[in-house]
Amino acid sequence: MCQLLGMNCNTPTDIVFSFEGFRRRGGLTDHHVDGFGIGFFEQKGVRLFHDDKPSAQSPVADLIKAYQIKSENVIAHIRKATSGRTSLANTHPFVREMWGHYWMFAHNGHLQGFHPPGGQYYRPVGDTDSERAFCHILEQLRQRFDQRPDDDTLFQAVAGLVAEIRRHGLFNFILSDGLVMFAHASTLLHYIVRQAPFGEARLLDDDVTIDFSAVTTPNDRVAVIATLPLTENEIWHQLACDELVMFRDGLIEKRDCPANPRYMSAEEGLAAARAAGTAV
Amino acid sequence: MCQLLGMNCNTPTDIVFSFEGFRRRGGLTDHHVDGFGIGFFEQKGVRLFHDDKPSAQSPVADLIKAYQIKSENVIAHIRKATSGRTSLANTHPFVREMWGHYWMFAHNGHLQGFHPPGGQYYRPVGDTDSERAFCHILEQLRQRFDQRPDDDTLFQAVAGLVAEIRRHGLFNFILSDGLVMFAHASTLLHYIVRQAPFGEARLLDDDVTIDFSAVTTPNDRVAVIATLPLTENEIWHQLACDELVMFRDGLIEKRDCPANPRYMSAEEGLAAARAAGTAV
Repeated sequence: MCQLLGMNCNTPTDIVFSFEGFRRRGGLTDHHVDGFGIGFFEQKGVRLFHDDKPSAQSPVADLIKAYQIKSENVIAHIRKATSGRTSLANTHPFVREMWGHYWMFAHNGHLQGFHPPGGQYYRPVGDTDSERAFCHILEQLRQRFDQRPDDDTLFQAVAGLVAEIRRHGLFNFILSDGLVMFAHASTLLHYIVRQAPFGEARLLDDDVTIDFSAVTTPNDRVAVIATLPLTENEIWHQLACDELVMFRDGLIEKRDCPANPRYMSAEEGLAAARAAGTAV
Repeated sequence: MCQLLGMNCNTPTDIVFSFEGFRRRGGLTDHHVDGFGIGFFEQKGVRLFHDDKPSAQSPVADLIKAYQIKSENVIAHIRKATSGRTSLANTHPFVREMWGHYWMFAHNGHLQGFHPPGGQYYRPVGDTDSERAFCHILEQLRQRFDQRPDDDTLFQAVAGLVAEIRRHGLFNFILSDGLVMFAHASTLLHYIVRQAPFGEARLLDDDVTIDFSAVTTPNDRVAVIATLPLTENEIWHQLACDELVMFRDGLIEKRDCPANPRYMSAEEGLAAARAAGTAV
């Protein structure tokens, strides 16, 4: 499968440390070599970078490192193509405007037989199941609400839509409007919340250590979400299969977890992705 | 005023030569130092770069040069801020999806008292008159047509909307859906169509000459649109005040020109922009 990375914070934070580990899975420490995409919210604006080069070698990824963009919400996706054309229109994350805010979405998995009717407000441009699912979620929310509802109503609505869509297959995704960040796991999705007292972290994919206490203030709180943990000396939490969470300001604000949660091992998750015809 | 650059071609073409001259007006040969944006269509996909650094010195602009992205439709905008915050959400070009295609828009000018009611399909994210005008055009088109109409119907509809909007002030803009490119002049907008036999061109803003015959095939056709001509030894054509044109495959396919066309000199155009409170 492809891999997902998300960050939700209470203060603009640069994602370079996490992204440096993550991008090495695109061609160096793993084989997700069919391009990548990363999107940053900057206040209400959105900055998107896509490249069809492997992220480990991409000059676009080098630029991201050099620029050290600070953002409260970031979504990234590295791709191992299975079927379907690799084209810019099919590259995650996808972006649309709803209720006067941009919404951003990246998906890893595979939805079978998922062909919702053409939307009134939102239509896919490319031909992926992922963009169809994103447009379907927005379409249903927009049909139901003319303005952004409160977080509780919004979360319940998203949870209901996700429960329908995941019947079609693997639906690991990250979704954000720049205010909150939704994360849903069908198979593998992990997260960590970093806050004071900050310590040191070592990347799994590179010989790099960072001392977060030197680059943060005591009030900072940063949630990082990734398909698989990015560091070797921190405790990452796993989302259960079919669990949906909503982060705000670096904390989980809402959670919809099955009554009897099941957690997949990395091996099971990779096997499930293979069985679903998704690249691993 | 800010400056606009557009390119519409019958074959994917790199815009580096034109962009290199254009970007120097962002801090070197002119004073449009408040950032820039450039968007490329790649088939149905869109690649956007924004930077708040002056385009002449921007590492993002360097990356664009290094990448030599080939595209059939490109829109760029360099900015001299007048009023209003410089923020990513207010940076041109703007993008929305309509009828299953992305639409891209950049504006130079100033619309006074232009506050159309909030759209059903399209709402601004930032707070510029430009994004309001873009959303208004899409909103009206989408309300009228559920699918993309033929070029003639589309052009007439856009022409009608533009005639209303320009009553509010200066409305130089470039708009594209990746298939066609609209250009409208209130004051200054020039274009050139390059086709066989190709010759040499020298940039006005830099000591750079290109021999197009060495980098093209005899079938290539490339229209370049810019606020002011970019080269010194080619003949650029000027759009009349209130003229709207639609390019397809590097040629003007539709044209809506006043019965008694009036052409502004560069000096008049700059004076009009100053009078309207737009940066020059």
